Amino acid sequence: MRFETLSVFPEVFAPYLDASIMGRAQRKGILDFEAYDLRDWTHDRHRTVDDAPFGGGQGMLMKPAPIFEAVRDIASRGDVPPHVVFFSPCGHPYDEACAQELSHMDRVLLVCGRYEGMDERAYALADEVISLGDYVLTGGELAALVVIDSVVRLLPGALGDEMSARDESFTAGLLEYSQYTRPADFEGMTVPEVLLSGDHAAVDRWRRVDAIERTARWRPDLIASADLSPQERSLAADIMAESSRPTRAASGVAGTQGGGE
Amino acid sequence: MRFETLSVFPEVFAPYLDASIMGRAQRKGILDFEAYDLRDWTHDRHRTVDDAPFGGGQGMLMKPAPIFEAVRDIASRGDVPPHVVFFSPCGHPYDEACAQELSHMDRVLLVCGRYEGMDERAYALADEVISLGDYVLTGGELAALVVIDSVVRLLPGALGDEMSARDESFTAGLLEYSQYTRPADFEGMTVPEVLLSGDHAAVDRWRRVDAIERTARWRPDLIASADLSPQERSLAADIMAESSRPTRAASGVAGTQGGGE
Repeated sequence: MRFETLSVFPEVFAPYLDASIMGRAQRKGILDFEAYDLRDWTHDRHRTVDDAPFGGGQGMLMKPAPIFEAVRDIASRGDVPPHVVFFSPCGHPYDEACAQELSHMDRVLLVCGRYEGMDERAYALADEVISLGDYVLTGGELAALVVIDSVVRLLPGALGDEMSARDESFTAGLLEYSQYTRPADFEGMTVPEVLLSGDHAAVDRWRRVDAIERTARWRPDLIASADLSPQERSLAADIMAESSRPTRAASGVAGTQGGGE
Repeated sequence: MRFETLSVFPEVFAPYLDASIMGRAQRKGILDFEAYDLRDWTHDRHRTVDDAPFGGGQGMLMKPAPIFEAVRDIASRGDVPPHVVFFSPCGHPYDEACAQELSHMDRVLLVCGRYEGMDERAYALADEVISLGDYVLTGGELAALVVIDSVVRLLPGALGDEMSARDESFTAGLLEYSQYTRPADFEGMTVPEVLLSGDHAAVDRWRRVDAIERTARWRPDLIASADLSPQERSLAADIMAESSRPTRAASGVAGTQGGGE
């Protein structure tokens, strides 16, 4: 799969994408990446990509012309046109389902804004507008890295033996169950007995219930669309009805559960 | 403000944080950053930080011991203890209000998971558990960079003349209004007349209505808690009632608005 980025900071991508799992995916030919510099599509001596907003206001906006010229030029290269993604708080919230959809595409171009924002007309180039979340970043570069990372890990062969894209949060509409490794007793915090039992069926049942309980407690909004049996749905409803639990540590779902609110 | 990260890939942070606005914030003394390597708190020859999960399953988990030792050791350094942040899909969704809260802290330690996940007991160390969104990343490093970027831009002096943290999406509970720069006519796509009028009061009115219309159309979930006059609330309700608009380009809110949903 080919990812391309268009940005005024093309140099920030490689240090992340050349390391670790993304780096291995590139070396294995699973990920093909290119970072374009938007300034290469300007025609003045200062390579200007921004201008003052009409109507006044602080800050500078990205001009429409270089973006149009760059996206059209990049799209004309290669055998297949790219799926063009812009980032904006007006976009649809990015989630695992979006990542899954993008993972089936051959070529994705991520257009990263900077400064105060982008001339509204540039969004006409977008096949898809994504919002990473309800917060503001200094630019779209980190959003692009998040999309690339979350999509590439879903590509066959990208994760090695030490990881798996199965049993993850959201893949079954639930948060993932609690996990534990050695030691069985760490400073008095013990691993739930059943996980030490060697009874695989019991382990599977415990994990299923734990995933439902965690989801009902921390992300009740996911329960409605989760694939649950009537019994499981009733368990989730019971937990969601208990609204006065003060802390996660006090919940006692899975022996000694750690932290958080 | 001091940000610290604890991770098995400490080298991925600097290339982003030394560049652009984050780099300038460091040079101006607004951001002080240090990346710790979790393997520095291991005691075996292979510097092992992961182990197999109890109860079986694919993948490796991060062991509790190095994380506890590292967080306690790091916390004991310096004058003030850090606010310790973990990342997990079980955490509370990260948003601009979280960024604002973090921006008032002196010292934040971001603990980044890798592999299949972290031993559940490690979360006992967390003062706060954050979820970046409903998607899975190969590790917490990008989540940490997103938090640092979104918080540092709020610190006084971090954004230069070319940017402003005012008038942004979410700061007033609304998406930001559409913005335009030169040329006034780009390939037949024109800037709304009022923005060229020089009538500042009219511009302000147009921007307010545009922000409400955009929010009602693309993020109706934000309208309930937005600070609106009765008239504005009625405008928003009208837009939310029109449910059959097929594309953003067809909305005609602000002259020629660009694509994507």
